[in-house]
Formats: sequence, C-alpha cells, structure tokens
Amino acid sequence: MSLLGIDIGGTKIAFAVLSEDGTLGSKETVLIEGRKGDEVGALITKTLKILQDKLAEEEKRIDSIGISVPGIYRQKTATVWAPNIPGWDDYPLLKKVKESSGEIPVIIDNDRACSMFGELWQGNARGCRNAVFIAVGTGIGAGILVNGEILRGQSDIAGATGWMALKTPYEEKYKGCGCFEYYASGAGMVKVARETAMEFNYYHGDLSDTDDGKLTASDIFEAFDSGDPVARRVVDQSIRLWGMAVANFVSIFNPEKIILGGGIFGPAEKYLQQIKDEAARWAQPISFSEVSVEVSSLKGDAGVYGAAYLAMKNRGLISYSENNV
Amino acid sequence: MSLLGIDIGGTKIAFAVLSEDGTLGSKETVLIEGRKGDEVGALITKTLKILQDKLAEEEKRIDSIGISVPGIYRQKTATVWAPNIPGWDDYPLLKKVKESSGEIPVIIDNDRACSMFGELWQGNARGCRNAVFIAVGTGIGAGILVNGEILRGQSDIAGATGWMALKTPYEEKYKGCGCFEYYASGAGMVKVARETAMEFNYYHGDLSDTDDGKLTASDIFEAFDSGDPVARRVVDQSIRLWGMAVANFVSIFNPEKIILGGGIFGPAEKYLQQIKDEAARWAQPISFSEVSVEVSSLKGDAGVYGAAYLAMKNRGLISYSENNV
Repeated sequence: MSLLGIDIGGTKIAFAVLSEDGTLGSKETVLIEGRKGDEVGALITKTLKILQDKLAEEEKRIDSIGISVPGIYRQKTATVWAPNIPGWDDYPLLKKVKESSGEIPVIIDNDRACSMFGELWQGNARGCRNAVFIAVGTGIGAGILVNGEILRGQSDIAGATGWMALKTPYEEKYKGCGCFEYYASGAGMVKVARETAMEFNYYHGDLSDTDDGKLTASDIFEAFDSGDPVARRVVDQSIRLWGMAVANFVSIFNPEKIILGGGIFGPAEKYLQQIKDEAARWAQPISFSEVSVEVSSLKGDAGVYGAAYLAMKNRGLISYSENNV
Repeated sequence: MSLLGIDIGGTKIAFAVLSEDGTLGSKETVLIEGRKGDEVGALITKTLKILQDKLAEEEKRIDSIGISVPGIYRQKTATVWAPNIPGWDDYPLLKKVKESSGEIPVIIDNDRACSMFGELWQGNARGCRNAVFIAVGTGIGAGILVNGEILRGQSDIAGATGWMALKTPYEEKYKGCGCFEYYASGAGMVKVARETAMEFNYYHGDLSDTDDGKLTASDIFEAFDSGDPVARRVVDQSIRLWGMAVANFVSIFNPEKIILGGGIFGPAEKYLQQIKDEAARWAQPISFSEVSVEVSSLKGDAGVYGAAYLAMKNRGLISYSENNV
C-alpha cells in the first residue's frame, strides 16, 4: 500500500510516497518558479504522472493521494484559495488532479490541518486529543486539535494566528497581515530588521545591506549569534511574541501539547527554552503546568506526512475519530 | 416538567425554575454572606428543600436539577474547585446535593459552559455551532462552542480568557490573574482606577475616594459619562482590550457569534460599537466579516438558563449533539 502526500507551498511542491506504517519511501520537490493558475495544476499532474511511471517500473502503484494546500480548501466547491499562488482564488484542484489520477482516491485539506495530522500520526502529537501546531514560516497559522478533531470554524478559516493581537495600541502597518505575523513571521522579521537597521544611527552591520531583497530570517539568526544589535532586537521581540502566543493557546485551549513548526523552527529551535520561559509568565498556571511545548520533530515534512495520513484515512484504513475531513 | 437551574456565583446563588420550553417560572437569589466550605453546600440544600416544599403546595415537583459552578467541575471525582468560595478546593457538591434531592437527577458544569448553553438554548447563540461567550464580571472567562460542543481542554480549564496576553512587555502585577483580567475585568477596572487616581496630580474627582473599598465598576461607568479623566482612561483602555480579545477569538475560532456577557455587560453594553470598531482593526478580515458580535440578551440569567438546559438534557429530553456533559 503506497500513500502519496503532496504538500503545496508558496514556492515549491513536495511529493512523498509513504507506507501506511508511516515509513517515508521517497520524496521529491519541484519548484513553482513563477507559475500561476492552471500552470501550477499542470505541474502537479505532470509530476504525478512521472511518479506513477517510476513506481510502475518497480511494479508498484499509488493507492491513495492526499494534498495539503497553503490557504483555504473549500470542501463544498472542492476549490482552493491560496494567496501566494496567483490565480488560485477559487481553483478547482480536486477536479484537476482527479482527471489525471483516474480511480485513485484524492483528498485535500489546508496546510494548518495537514501539519497537525502529520504530528498526530508520526510526530510529537501522537496520542493527543488536544494540541496546537503553530506554523511559523513566511506567514503564521495554526492547526488546532480539539477533542480529537481539527478546529474548522464556520467557514474553514479557524487558526488564523498571524492576526493575533499581542501589542497595544493598533498600528496601521498591521493591516493586511495581522499584528503577530507583522513582527514574528519569517517575512515579518526580515521587514522589521530592515526598518530597525534604518532607524539605528551608525549601524553598518550584516543586516544593513537592505536593498538587494535577499535578506532572510536565517541571516537574522546568524547575525544574532554574532551579537548584531539589530538582529538582537528583532529576535528578542519575536521570542517575546512567540511566547505570548503559546501562552494564549495554553490559556484558551488547555491542550496537552503545543508544537512549534514551519520554516522558522528550524533555526529558531534553539530559543525554545526562552519561548517557554516567556509563555510561563503569561499563561494560566495550571494549564501551563500540564502542557508540553515542543519543536516539531517532522520539521518541514509535517505537511506531506499529514497529507499521506489523510490519504490513508480516505481509503478507510483507519478509524480515527475525525469527523470533518 | 419543571427544571431547576442553580447558578452559584462568588457572592450569591440564584435558583430558577424553568419549563422545558425555556419559560422562566420563578427565580430567587440567596446571598453567600461569608459562608464557606460545607456551609455553602448546606445553604444550597436548605434552599432546595424550601423550594420543593413551596412547589409541593402547588402540587408541582422538580424533575431535574442543573448546577453552574464558578470555577472547575471535575467530572471524574464529581468535585468542585471554586476560588472565590473558601474551602471549595475539591468540594463534593454532587454527593451533597444528591443526599438532599433523592431521586431527582442532578448535573453540574462550570459557569463558562453553562453561560454558553444558556445562550445556545434561549439566548443569542440559538442555532450556532461555533460561538464564544465572553463573561466579564469580577473576573474574565469564556464559554467556547466548537462544532456544537463545549471546548473543555485536557482537564476542563479551557477558556481561561483572563490570562490572555494582550500588552507587551510582561509586568509582575499580572501574576495571579492574567494580563486581560488585570485591566479589563470588573475587579481589575476598580484596581486600575485607584492606581490611576493616585497617579494623576490634582485629581479630586468621583473616583478619588479610594479608601473605603466600595468603588465599583458601575461608579467608573458613571464617572466616565460625566467626563471624569480617570474613568476615561480606565474605560478607554478596557474598550481597547475587549476589542482585541474579541478579535483574537474571531481569528482563532472563525465563529458565527461572539457574545459579551457577565456583570459588566450590563453597563458596558453602550460601548458595543466601539468594541466592534476596535476588534475590526485587529481580526482576520474574512472571519470578522462573518461574525456577529453581540451583548447577551439573557444578561445575568445566562447561568440559570444554561444550568436548566443541562438539567433537561440530563433527563434525556433533547437530542442536541453535545457529547461532553
């Protein structure tokens, strides 16, 4: 039995073949490289075909496909809204993939839910009924497990954690991304580092070369390690806000686990203790004493694991009580 | 069919008899007046007996009892932790009431859940599957409905909204109550008004008489209306924080309704539009466009309605899909 997990990101798409015991067979990644609309759909079906041909040579086949999308999957219309893929405002992804996959069942869910499912199946949330996966990458979102089920909200956009209000008063610059994401997402940290470098008089550090558009969050973490004052301010502020967000999830959800993942965790893993210390100051103390705050062990693979988990469920191979997908 | 809803607060206990169509028959309130531990249990059973005798004169009887408790109800041990009732750290309330109620079924839940159930049954949340009841009284808590079920968390303390981190950096004074509750609960507003009155030089306004311990949130709202500068600062700050908390619930839960209740809403109802305006700036915009933010129509009775609803459910009279109680 081979499960195909496809994790669509803003810049690349990962394809992973897994068995139903969670063993990762093979994984490959294709770059989106400026494609838009149906070109991205075509890239997926083309790669799927290549994968199928390759498996056929080994006399294997894909038995079920799960897809993680970066945005909203509208179950009623089977369409995708993905803000970082131009032309995917209401893209009929299920139809597109089914045209190519034939009899193989296909299931789609959003990346927040998929990451949480990945952690639940093969990562740090195994056995949990109540857990939160905070994904900090270019943006910030959360996959939230409540009593064994993914929190959906009335229209599948629950978990929009980037919009968490953590700092008063409101500033106009939060418009379009939200307060938490403005400061503490990957893109946010880069933007704030640039602003801060310009504010600091006589600053000529590693983060001062702000024109080439190539500054990344990794550069900021490196500069932090070498004592750069701009990086210090940006990272310290992010640690504080990550800690406050963790605290808010703890106080509101009383979960067993909070898992930090996405591209930033990753490099920001080394700040975990500081994040926990900050969270401990803010959170409801009994709830905080009961929660375990961890960094994802699946790292960037949480999405493909979760997509493969959905694929397995969609074949009726497990009886896990998740009613909504 | 008569349902008895009992709503235990920090200072008083309300007893209401309702029919299964939600008609409020009678309601009476007894004061706790410094009682503690088993004395409070005895006050409940004594009042229950008086009520039963009164109903018997009319040839009526109580068919089912529901009780709302101000804290945590531990279902496994059937005991109550209520921080504002001395001696109720692990009080066996179910056993106590059952000794007196005999054959009448008794069910207990926490006040956050009961308020939400009250709104769901007879208030503004009728027909909702995803809604949040933010109770602002002496403290702050929330009853949260997710996909038709109350959010419990791993140990029944989900919804500890008073601990929401909304202002950076952390201050030691938040310890013991949480940041949101420190500023924007009834007790918090009084405390902050006193601090502010002392900070303001030459202030001799209505809120300057801070020694007698009798200042209430209502005094602050009255002073606000007459232009008092201390009241203005305290109320403006509360409006901002209430708006941010509403926004955070909207972004995280994508609910159909947010209902503001508790003793403060009440008098703070007149600030609803300002709270909505503040929330609109912070929240995920699609989710915010889909939510209705309202003040409780049941006011202080949400708890007894919710308790009576539980009593009805416990008699198996309704089939509403709520698995956890």
